[in-house]
Amino acid sequence: MSQPFTVSMQVRDYELDMQGIVNNSVYQNYLEHARHEYLKSIGLDFADFARRGINLVVFRAELDYKASLTSGDTFTISVRMVRESRLKFAFLQDIVRSSDNKAIMSAKIIGTALAANGRPEIPPELDLLLD
Amino acid sequence: MSQPFTVSMQVRDYELDMQGIVNNSVYQNYLEHARHEYLKSIGLDFADFARRGINLVVFRAELDYKASLTSGDTFTISVRMVRESRLKFAFLQDIVRSSDNKAIMSAKIIGTALAANGRPEIPPELDLLLD
Amino acid sequence: MSQPFTVSMQVRDYELDMQGIVNNSVYQNYLEHARHEYLKSIGLDFADFARRGINLVVFRAELDYKASLTSGDTFTISVRMVRESRLKFAFLQDIVRSSDNKAIMSAKIIGTALAANGRPEIPPELDLLLD
Amino acid sequence: MSQPFTVSMQVRDYELDMQGIVNNSVYQNYLEHARHEYLKSIGLDFADFARRGINLVVFRAELDYKASLTSGDTFTISVRMVRESRLKFAFLQDIVRSSDNKAIMSAKIIGTALAANGRPEIPPELDLLLD
Repeated sequence: MSQPFTVSMQVRDYELDMQGIVNNSVYQNYLEHARHEYLKSIGLDFADFARRGINLVVFRAELDYKASLTSGDTFTISVRMVRESRLKFAFLQDIVRSSDNKAIMSAKIIGTALAANGRPEIPPELDLLLD
Repeated sequence: MSQPFTVSMQVRDYELDMQGIVNNSVYQNYLEHARHEYLKSIGLDFADFARRGINLVVFRAELDYKASLTSGDTFTISVRMVRESRLKFAFLQDIVRSSDNKAIMSAKIIGTALAANGRPEIPPELDLLLD
Repeated sequence: MSQPFTVSMQVRDYELDMQGIVNNSVYQNYLEHARHEYLKSIGLDFADFARRGINLVVFRAELDYKASLTSGDTFTISVRMVRESRLKFAFLQDIVRSSDNKAIMSAKIIGTALAANGRPEIPPELDLLLD
Repeated sequence: MSQPFTVSMQVRDYELDMQGIVNNSVYQNYLEHARHEYLKSIGLDFADFARRGINLVVFRAELDYKASLTSGDTFTISVRMVRESRLKFAFLQDIVRSSDNKAIMSAKIIGTALAANGRPEIPPELDLLLD
């Protein structure tokens, strides 16, 4: 097995909620950003797909929140992409706090690609990577 | 069974992403807002809990994205709260587009309450509602 | 003078920051939503313009923060559109808390429309309204 | 004159709106993050102030949008803090795209500090820096 792709990020204060911790919904932003960076690292550009009418879409997200991030925290997000079925792929993602390697979140994000006609259709350049 | 609690909302254009649809992470904002409104409707105030040092936290979210909302769409979110275990509760939530009753998302959000010492502890007024 | 257009809104808890008040940047979301609702009320649809390659863009925002909104607050946003110059228009917007009519924010948002070629060009249906 | 403080950032795709460009309100997030990083660099922590009941608040923002950022863009934000009056300070901030040094935004953000009693009161450690 190869090393998973990772992105390093830092909490920004506007991402904190009234509890003083990163709001739940913000983690999906982090996870999405890491997936897009991962795709770019293998030569696939989400924005470029969108402009070509191919929409990569999520249809299930399983998010396990294990601990909270707060102001100033830095963290890494790992990304592994696996085939889930013929027309589905999944991203396995973990968020780990840098200071102490504490597990913050595990996520499984299942997606597909929709062609301009709305039908699921994995573009060949993505399909190739899923074997 | 009683009717589930529902909240009506409308998509705002700043919630759309470059695909012209509501961004995935925004649904968690919608769901959270509906849960807080539900809690208020039964006399529990999330913000008030937070000020008292009791943090209601999510530790697992299962989100099934079935269709997308876009500019101008109105929708309802239903909320049912059930006991998941002694120290856990779950919210079952569905988002339905108003114009055609299309199912947009189903979600199961599992949470607990953390006391000021960080330990899970369901406040009595919430515990009572979970039987 | 005609009555200004107004939209009623309610603070959602995810919009609060660690100070327990609505985060500064969220007001721009509120203001934008109110502008788009205003435009719709006079038959102009921002999303529709975007799809036609006409981008309504802001190029200056002057925001006066007078007081803060917090959890549960309801408020209204008024919108008046005026011509600023031949190729510029301005929105004058005020946010007022409903419970006590307290002024929360005054804003002047100056914009133009960019045609597909990137040049400022006010679409005729908008231009007509600015006299 | 000393060099202004700068922070480097990168657009994340979830920050794009349906026009495919960074949404207006997101720039305020960028600017706030840069201000907080600047304050930290001189030994002042916004989150720490908030916990001590001293709220640094913005009461006027003047934002000049000059060009748009889009997917993949990297940029720097500069921050200079100056005294505006006895109880007010201002941040002068510029956003510049890294690839071509294009000016994206200039901002003047005027703020003060509110003590727990809601009165403006610049904490001494901040006041010292404003001479």
